[in-house]
Amino acid sequence: MTDARTDLRIGMVGYAFMGAAHSQAWRTAPAFFDLPMHPRMTAVCGRDKEAATKVAERFGWESVETDWRALLERDDIDVIDICTPGDTHAEIAIAALRAGKHVLCEKPLANTVAEAEAMAEAAAEAAQHGVRAMVGFTYRRTPAVAMARKLAADGWLGTIRHVRAQYLQDWLNDENTPLSWRLDKEKAGSGALGDIGAHIVDMAQFVTGSRIASVSGLMETFVTTRPVAGDHATLGGSSSGDGERGPVTVDDAAVFTSRFDDGSVGVFEATRFATGRKNALRIEVNGSTGSLAFDFEDMNVLQYFDANEDPATAGFRRIIVTEATHPYVAAWWPPGHGLGYEHGFTHQVVDLVTAIADGTDPSPSFADGLAVQRVLAAVEASSADGTTHTTGA
Amino acid sequence: MTDARTDLRIGMVGYAFMGAAHSQAWRTAPAFFDLPMHPRMTAVCGRDKEAATKVAERFGWESVETDWRALLERDDIDVIDICTPGDTHAEIAIAALRAGKHVLCEKPLANTVAEAEAMAEAAAEAAQHGVRAMVGFTYRRTPAVAMARKLAADGWLGTIRHVRAQYLQDWLNDENTPLSWRLDKEKAGSGALGDIGAHIVDMAQFVTGSRIASVSGLMETFVTTRPVAGDHATLGGSSSGDGERGPVTVDDAAVFTSRFDDGSVGVFEATRFATGRKNALRIEVNGSTGSLAFDFEDMNVLQYFDANEDPATAGFRRIIVTEATHPYVAAWWPPGHGLGYEHGFTHQVVDLVTAIADGTDPSPSFADGLAVQRVLAAVEASSADGTTHTTGA
Amino acid sequence: MTDARTDLRIGMVGYAFMGAAHSQAWRTAPAFFDLPMHPRMTAVCGRDKEAATKVAERFGWESVETDWRALLERDDIDVIDICTPGDTHAEIAIAALRAGKHVLCEKPLANTVAEAEAMAEAAAEAAQHGVRAMVGFTYRRTPAVAMARKLAADGWLGTIRHVRAQYLQDWLNDENTPLSWRLDKEKAGSGALGDIGAHIVDMAQFVTGSRIASVSGLMETFVTTRPVAGDHATLGGSSSGDGERGPVTVDDAAVFTSRFDDGSVGVFEATRFATGRKNALRIEVNGSTGSLAFDFEDMNVLQYFDANEDPATAGFRRIIVTEATHPYVAAWWPPGHGLGYEHGFTHQVVDLVTAIADGTDPSPSFADGLAVQRVLAAVEASSADGTTHTTGA
Amino acid sequence: MTDARTDLRIGMVGYAFMGAAHSQAWRTAPAFFDLPMHPRMTAVCGRDKEAATKVAERFGWESVETDWRALLERDDIDVIDICTPGDTHAEIAIAALRAGKHVLCEKPLANTVAEAEAMAEAAAEAAQHGVRAMVGFTYRRTPAVAMARKLAADGWLGTIRHVRAQYLQDWLNDENTPLSWRLDKEKAGSGALGDIGAHIVDMAQFVTGSRIASVSGLMETFVTTRPVAGDHATLGGSSSGDGERGPVTVDDAAVFTSRFDDGSVGVFEATRFATGRKNALRIEVNGSTGSLAFDFEDMNVLQYFDANEDPATAGFRRIIVTEATHPYVAAWWPPGHGLGYEHGFTHQVVDLVTAIADGTDPSPSFADGLAVQRVLAAVEASSADGTTHTTGA
Repeated sequence: MTDARTDLRIGMVGYAFMGAAHSQAWRTAPAFFDLPMHPRMTAVCGRDKEAATKVAERFGWESVETDWRALLERDDIDVIDICTPGDTHAEIAIAALRAGKHVLCEKPLANTVAEAEAMAEAAAEAAQHGVRAMVGFTYRRTPAVAMARKLAADGWLGTIRHVRAQYLQDWLNDENTPLSWRLDKEKAGSGALGDIGAHIVDMAQFVTGSRIASVSGLMETFVTTRPVAGDHATLGGSSSGDGERGPVTVDDAAVFTSRFDDGSVGVFEATRFATGRKNALRIEVNGSTGSLAFDFEDMNVLQYFDANEDPATAGFRRIIVTEATHPYVAAWWPPGHGLGYEHGFTHQVVDLVTAIADGTDPSPSFADGLAVQRVLAAVEASSADGTTHTTGA
Repeated sequence: MTDARTDLRIGMVGYAFMGAAHSQAWRTAPAFFDLPMHPRMTAVCGRDKEAATKVAERFGWESVETDWRALLERDDIDVIDICTPGDTHAEIAIAALRAGKHVLCEKPLANTVAEAEAMAEAAAEAAQHGVRAMVGFTYRRTPAVAMARKLAADGWLGTIRHVRAQYLQDWLNDENTPLSWRLDKEKAGSGALGDIGAHIVDMAQFVTGSRIASVSGLMETFVTTRPVAGDHATLGGSSSGDGERGPVTVDDAAVFTSRFDDGSVGVFEATRFATGRKNALRIEVNGSTGSLAFDFEDMNVLQYFDANEDPATAGFRRIIVTEATHPYVAAWWPPGHGLGYEHGFTHQVVDLVTAIADGTDPSPSFADGLAVQRVLAAVEASSADGTTHTTGA
Repeated sequence: MTDARTDLRIGMVGYAFMGAAHSQAWRTAPAFFDLPMHPRMTAVCGRDKEAATKVAERFGWESVETDWRALLERDDIDVIDICTPGDTHAEIAIAALRAGKHVLCEKPLANTVAEAEAMAEAAAEAAQHGVRAMVGFTYRRTPAVAMARKLAADGWLGTIRHVRAQYLQDWLNDENTPLSWRLDKEKAGSGALGDIGAHIVDMAQFVTGSRIASVSGLMETFVTTRPVAGDHATLGGSSSGDGERGPVTVDDAAVFTSRFDDGSVGVFEATRFATGRKNALRIEVNGSTGSLAFDFEDMNVLQYFDANEDPATAGFRRIIVTEATHPYVAAWWPPGHGLGYEHGFTHQVVDLVTAIADGTDPSPSFADGLAVQRVLAAVEASSADGTTHTTGA
Repeated sequence: MTDARTDLRIGMVGYAFMGAAHSQAWRTAPAFFDLPMHPRMTAVCGRDKEAATKVAERFGWESVETDWRALLERDDIDVIDICTPGDTHAEIAIAALRAGKHVLCEKPLANTVAEAEAMAEAAAEAAQHGVRAMVGFTYRRTPAVAMARKLAADGWLGTIRHVRAQYLQDWLNDENTPLSWRLDKEKAGSGALGDIGAHIVDMAQFVTGSRIASVSGLMETFVTTRPVAGDHATLGGSSSGDGERGPVTVDDAAVFTSRFDDGSVGVFEATRFATGRKNALRIEVNGSTGSLAFDFEDMNVLQYFDANEDPATAGFRRIIVTEATHPYVAAWWPPGHGLGYEHGFTHQVVDLVTAIADGTDPSPSFADGLAVQRVLAAVEASSADGTTHTTGA
């Protein structure tokens, strides 16, 4: 069995939750999509060799490294796929780009604006040498979200007036849920704001095509201490039980109002305390001629209202986004046979490989990631001093 | 046919949209509920005698007046029911209370905090003489909302962390929808903020039992001029067609974040530009042990999530609020036979008559109305200067 | 106050659940609608004079009778409104029509086909003398259902292929819910089939404009004995507690498949044992160019799918049927301010008064009621012998 | 990298739609689940060698065969996975079982009861030698459906009274959709009945744990001729355009009522003409103490009503079936991160491998498949003669 296509050799850093999602995407994309290059799962890298080896065996990575720098030195690696916590992104990504490796970096791009700026600069410079960089806002690749963007870009909404976006989870609702790296400002940068708020900021800017110009924010930590877990890394793991509690140094919830650069008004809310909401990543956009609404808890559906219809028969349409003409869908199953969470990662791989093969810059770029970071920073500053802050957009 | 109950003689001021709703309520309440007093529809008052007479004939008002002062002078009137625009509320209500008449006043209580304060003072003084005052936040009397309050008051939500409330309409979406008194700051005080934002502020404070302590707001007028209509009073009427446009002097949309006095975080949005949303008065409350969600577009339903359930079988319950044990419902139809918008007005009448007969102060009081007014004023001030404002609560 | 319109003087027989709904309708219709005649609530009739007098006082009936024959003899009565159980319909209605009174008769038209045939004959004869007869399938007058009929009649569905209709309740789910007249074949004729199945049969024939030609049915009584209640008439009342149980002589559930005379296929289900479903009167119609779906538990909404749309943006539209251009709605409230169960009765009165004033036959006619009765009889016969039965349509 | 587990070597026959789903399952199961044996994708078999080779390359099958008999002769194959049309199932499956190969056979088990009986006999005999057979009703492995079964089996529904199940698609709605093998009775056995009706029959029997004892059915072909396509095999492909039409020899829709052996009543409907419904595989079960409802168009959700709750707070719960304690879910993503259509196939592989390793018979067995076949045959017979037929259950 031969394959005339050029190999695209991947080295992935990190192997936890995101590592599994990315591994499955690299394996699955070439099976369902006709890709212009052939991704090879060349190496996975993790400090814990045993764990990394197990991931390699499960998903078919050909080799294992324990230091990401080793990946950069290998000339049989074309792409560095960064799945580590946010505090490591800048160092790895910048070094990789300078080493001539294409980079896919998980979101948020970085934990600070300064880091994100350095990354965006490195990406701009690398682009001049044909080296590509992409940030992993995968929810853009949910077919219903990609369809929302298409409708907005094609003018179906008219002049946009309102954006309301929420990312509602509840996994910290129990005050005895233990500490983890996601609750440590050093590692995570921020809490709900950076982890899930970043997604709705990116999604709002992606779907509308506008940038958030100013924000007025409010952040809150409802539960300020939590049990110290035996294993901090375990999301939702149980406490060590000895009663020791440590400080939560990030926000539990972040809410903010905003103005976009096109004059529309936004309302955003990110929280891990919305009891009963599991992964309610929602966005609604209201324009002069139409509206869109999406909720990830019903991820194969896009709601659309056409204001040009006769009011007697107008109504929000429940579009099941599983038709062959919907973005990414033709590669999969018949209408009504829904996709799941991890398909967005497969679509991300498809778009990245295509961009690299075509010699074009993939989207979302590091500049897009930086734009998100600036919004998050403005929200933090606004929350601290109680005034409105601009983002520079 | 005799009736041993004392008559409670009503004089209503105003006869438009709200007048029809109130008239139907006065007629309907005694037919379905066992009231402790017998409401008599003694007089309706409107400046246009012909129109007022037509309303009297349709709903069974026994007499017609053209000056509200005449109502106050009549000793066969016990209650003044004020259904006029907000700029007239203070004068009528204060005079009525001083004349010893019980008062039911439509919301918002007034157009300014100063007026509302004067009204609340007048109500407090009148209460000392057994004269009652109530403000017409009727949505409280939607059975699903009353049930929400009951669940929160009974502790089913635990510690409340989040309130998100929206009042979304779209009737101004078309920029050629003509001017009306609701778009005139002199008459209406404010736009979306006072007209519909007032409802979600009251509902949030009612359901949670807490007060909004500070706000950070943003108000916007998307369409700044509109056609001058032949008849300004007609909601949604068509333009006079001569091309003349006049200024819109109120907000089209108002959004704000808030802190409640119990530490919970709120997000509020009121707009007349949410294309496709007709009367989406929504509230969701998330607490440590449960959540509630309501949308007036599905008004007979309350969503409830019980966090104490086994996660394997937990989920938002779609409670159809039509059981005999639900608030107000036993008087009506069998389970599943839903109620409509105007039933809230009937329930309002039931509660007012009951309070008067019992010699207790009805709720919401003018003090409650003032509390709402202070929130609205703080939102306006915050929107003007871009900083967070406290409400005094 | 004068009113140039002719009075239309009503005499109502029966005053329980249906009597309250009809009374409220007679009072409310002229307040909200411009009727061509003026309905007067002249007399209410019930064997229990005290109870009837109480209803008269509550709703404003001008006089009370205890024998329906007395109503027929009074020349100040124009319309007989029959709200009694089904076993009395034929006698009263036929006598009233022969006495020259217009008749509004609650559904089902009768308990047997023979009675219904006699009634339809009497109605046909009366019509020749300008005397009108109407059967009370009020759900037709829910705006969303009337809108569904309009869309189907205007050709929006194309060739109809499927009808699926359900009427799901659960009030007999508890095997200790006591006996009532609705469970007595002598009084009620049948159980779920005639009480609620009749509604979906009528609705299916109304919305599609076609008749059910043949059926294959299955009826079941899950709980064959129930406690004897102190007061059999009380729906959902509690048992007398002495442990005595009596037989249930009607069906608890009835299901059937059908062919319509236009070649479409139907599936029907009526039950009082659908745990959790309170009043789920549902219909879905699929045609070659469109589909409709309705559920009374969300009664202000009509779902509509337009198959002519681009599949990429096609989806069931959630039409909130509260626009001024929707059937009956202009008389009521602004968009999104929903109506309730009893509004259908008001609309029924509006249509009946209008037909009488116009000198036209109202709809649904007694012939329509007979058509429903024939379907119900065919279902019973089919269930008894296990074969397909035709209806004669 | 070594793996102490025994290999389980798979040979798959067929490579179209189902072949892709099965291939992805074989690849994915060992990456996310800890399997007791290690599946190896040893060979794929298809008559078109080029196409089979392409599938092998995409999914990682190690070799290609063009005759299924060759697979049976290879001693490096342990499992035969049959993904071909129904008319070939009996021959392949029986031969494979006799050759000592475990068999996974796509549904429906066969096109006739006789074939299914022979297969069930062969499976029973093979089981005596430790050779396993399983039929591919994958929807059982959707976590929400598996959870439904668990709730019913654990007694949460009490005595079951009603089952209503629908499988609604619309891909044949356009009368110019061309012919394909699915519309050819020789190949497909039946139309909607066998293709999708089989799924709801199996699901109803699986969830309730009861068997359908008798049925009364009605089948219809709405569009009796269709364009002859260049490639009959293409689902939804376009016509050859020369105007030639050939006969549709299967049913477009099949509906039937049923009695289960536990006394409950069922209503079933399978159609490819439900305009706007894409893959609405729905089931609702009503019992004396609870109800369940599922719709594959919202596949990560199970609706559950608990009749033991206080009616004031009872309601259908929308359980998002993505908790770690839900069936199959712990292997995947955090709560709220939904799964898709193909995950059911992965779960099927997990259960089959586990059963083979444990030496137990997997479920659903060929006997389960035969039971479904008998119901389908009874529906066909009933539809033909208009009488009720028993199934032998």
